[in-house]
Amino acid sequence: MALIVQKFGGTSVANPERIQNVAKRVAKTFDQGNDLVIILSAMAGVTDSLISLAYKMSESPETRELDVLLATGEQTTAALLSMTLRSMNYPAMSLLGFQAEVVTDGNYCNARILDIGAGRIKDLLKERNIVVVAGFQGCDPDGNITTLGRGGSDTSAVAIAAAIKADVCEIFTDVDGVYTADPNVCSKARKLDKISCEEMLEMASLGAKVLHLRSVEFALKHNVPVYVRSSFNEEEGTMVVNGDHDMERPVVSGITYNKNEARITLKKVPDQPGIAAKIFARIADANINVDMIIQNTRSGGETDLTFTVPKVDFKKALNIEKQVAEEIGAEKVLGDESIAKVSVTGIGMKSHSGVASKMFSALAAENINIAMISTSEIRISCVVEEKKAELAVRTLHTAFGLDKE
Amino acid sequence: MALIVQKFGGTSVANPERIQNVAKRVAKTFDQGNDLVIILSAMAGVTDSLISLAYKMSESPETRELDVLLATGEQTTAALLSMTLRSMNYPAMSLLGFQAEVVTDGNYCNARILDIGAGRIKDLLKERNIVVVAGFQGCDPDGNITTLGRGGSDTSAVAIAAAIKADVCEIFTDVDGVYTADPNVCSKARKLDKISCEEMLEMASLGAKVLHLRSVEFALKHNVPVYVRSSFNEEEGTMVVNGDHDMERPVVSGITYNKNEARITLKKVPDQPGIAAKIFARIADANINVDMIIQNTRSGGETDLTFTVPKVDFKKALNIEKQVAEEIGAEKVLGDESIAKVSVTGIGMKSHSGVASKMFSALAAENINIAMISTSEIRISCVVEEKKAELAVRTLHTAFGLDKE
Repeated sequence: MALIVQKFGGTSVANPERIQNVAKRVAKTFDQGNDLVIILSAMAGVTDSLISLAYKMSESPETRELDVLLATGEQTTAALLSMTLRSMNYPAMSLLGFQAEVVTDGNYCNARILDIGAGRIKDLLKERNIVVVAGFQGCDPDGNITTLGRGGSDTSAVAIAAAIKADVCEIFTDVDGVYTADPNVCSKARKLDKISCEEMLEMASLGAKVLHLRSVEFALKHNVPVYVRSSFNEEEGTMVVNGDHDMERPVVSGITYNKNEARITLKKVPDQPGIAAKIFARIADANINVDMIIQNTRSGGETDLTFTVPKVDFKKALNIEKQVAEEIGAEKVLGDESIAKVSVTGIGMKSHSGVASKMFSALAAENINIAMISTSEIRISCVVEEKKAELAVRTLHTAFGLDKE
Repeated sequence: MALIVQKFGGTSVANPERIQNVAKRVAKTFDQGNDLVIILSAMAGVTDSLISLAYKMSESPETRELDVLLATGEQTTAALLSMTLRSMNYPAMSLLGFQAEVVTDGNYCNARILDIGAGRIKDLLKERNIVVVAGFQGCDPDGNITTLGRGGSDTSAVAIAAAIKADVCEIFTDVDGVYTADPNVCSKARKLDKISCEEMLEMASLGAKVLHLRSVEFALKHNVPVYVRSSFNEEEGTMVVNGDHDMERPVVSGITYNKNEARITLKKVPDQPGIAAKIFARIADANINVDMIIQNTRSGGETDLTFTVPKVDFKKALNIEKQVAEEIGAEKVLGDESIAKVSVTGIGMKSHSGVASKMFSALAAENINIAMISTSEIRISCVVEEKKAELAVRTLHTAFGLDKE
């Protein structure tokens, strides 16, 4: 008997049949004597349809109203699952964000959870109800509806699990766990039984789409055990655990890549104080996120400055920097959209040296050129040519001994 | 400058283009200096689709969850209209039922409004916002989402108009007003400039689909002037006014009919106290509404008893009465599904005699047999053969001088 939060993603509730499957799965866990809170996403594709409907009404839909619109997606699935469970004679009851007291800031479309006053959830659990909560949504302190941004239902689930002190937060998705690399790219990828929150955090931010980044931050901060598993089979998934208690763990846990970034280089920038601030202030004003930044030293009081931005913002960023280059007297601006970022992540790196050199020599052996490098305590990322991304993943997967037998 | 509530029905917001037309119309009224609260229905067809989705999940969907599901329809249109107005630079803001403080009882799927705490609406109006409220929905005192039943958005509109003391509640629909008869049946039908609440109430309950019955009750009780008009043109509509200040008004305002009822007759019922109660108690237990009841006197301590029920409940009611007939020793039970009720309504009847006899002789002249008669202070209804309903409407329309020139 445990208190379990289960979150089902969009593909798990994509149609009435799948919702019925989820209901059966929930019923089974309930019958085993567990207390259950279920968090749901919208049916796969619904959020996108709603967004495109909004863009039919307006070139840039007002975000407050967009959230009111988007919130209908999870409201629909929460109602459908609850009535399905009810018709199976299970005591289910749906709660929307505001009813579950998911209080967020007022940053529409990308709100952050401030607090979860889980009073009603706890009351319903006490009466042995299955509480079905619409994910992705909350309301701000003034009672306006907000949404948490792409993948926000993961965050709803982990946050609610933290608030009610659940024993585990199970994330049911269309993959059956966290892999050492994307199995579509690397056929030798293995499913991990366990991964640390910190590694998951790096991997989520690097583009592994298993968990929403912010949900992992939440899990780490509030010490919520998260279990990622498939909603389509009963196989064991991957446990995301806080801290690293496993001395035997390998140095590297996974290889990730993403192709969502583009590179911009300002050549021969005058090497004066305040120049970098000027270059990035404009980008920040335009709400463009900069990821990697590299400044090379050059002779003669000049320097080259390279950074990456999301591919969708590339053209805008390039135009901004062309203006900036003129103003500050840089020689020219170069752009490259055909890049990929390949990363090696592992909490073991904290205590092992030689990971970087192993990575660089493995790539070199395959004639893969490294254009940029950035590192964290538990990660090394290299920018390579886009077309060599998959080869780089497979090469590193083998080099770090992750291939399955 | 006035404080105006405008309600747009499902056909008026059926697609993005029509929502844009509504936005233009709203903007125009706002530009004239009026304060505006807009109430919206779901897009035409959406509520039905949601209901059929619910029935895919469950043979009899739990009503609380059905309401959560249905409420998404009006949430969607409220968000879409608000973002459209925003993109036209009008200060629109959507409110859902709970945000507009539409408090109802807990009778899911057919809730009654208990109170409207219009505080937020008034605050938003003070700041010259266009307040867009999702119709049809409210929440009960415990914060559960409720809906008001078919056509409930009309009631939302009139109730909110009453709460904020609006100068007028305009109901925009796909007909351009209230007619003396259904123009599809009677080509000589005329649009009424004005109709009394009481007449509208009778006509709504008789099947005129222009306004939701309960909304007219609300208008009558709270003295809200209601103006019915088309959302597809700028023509004058029909004003529904409280009281009868117009001495010149004709005796009869309109002819209505409906074919939704069926007739059941118990022959040779023992004429004893308590028998009628027995006959109708079972029907009531089965949640079947009885409309007209007629008891004919017969000789010999026996009587015939005839009543009408909704056609959808006919078979169930017939089976119940067959049992009852055996128990009480009635001779037999007859049923007839091919009937229609034709009604003549007019507040002038209060002070005019001879309306009934004129009605009966007009029908007789066309050889239309009257099977049942019932009357109220301002209405006379006759049950006739279903196939003669349209003829009866046209005949009475002419007989009471309602034909247009």
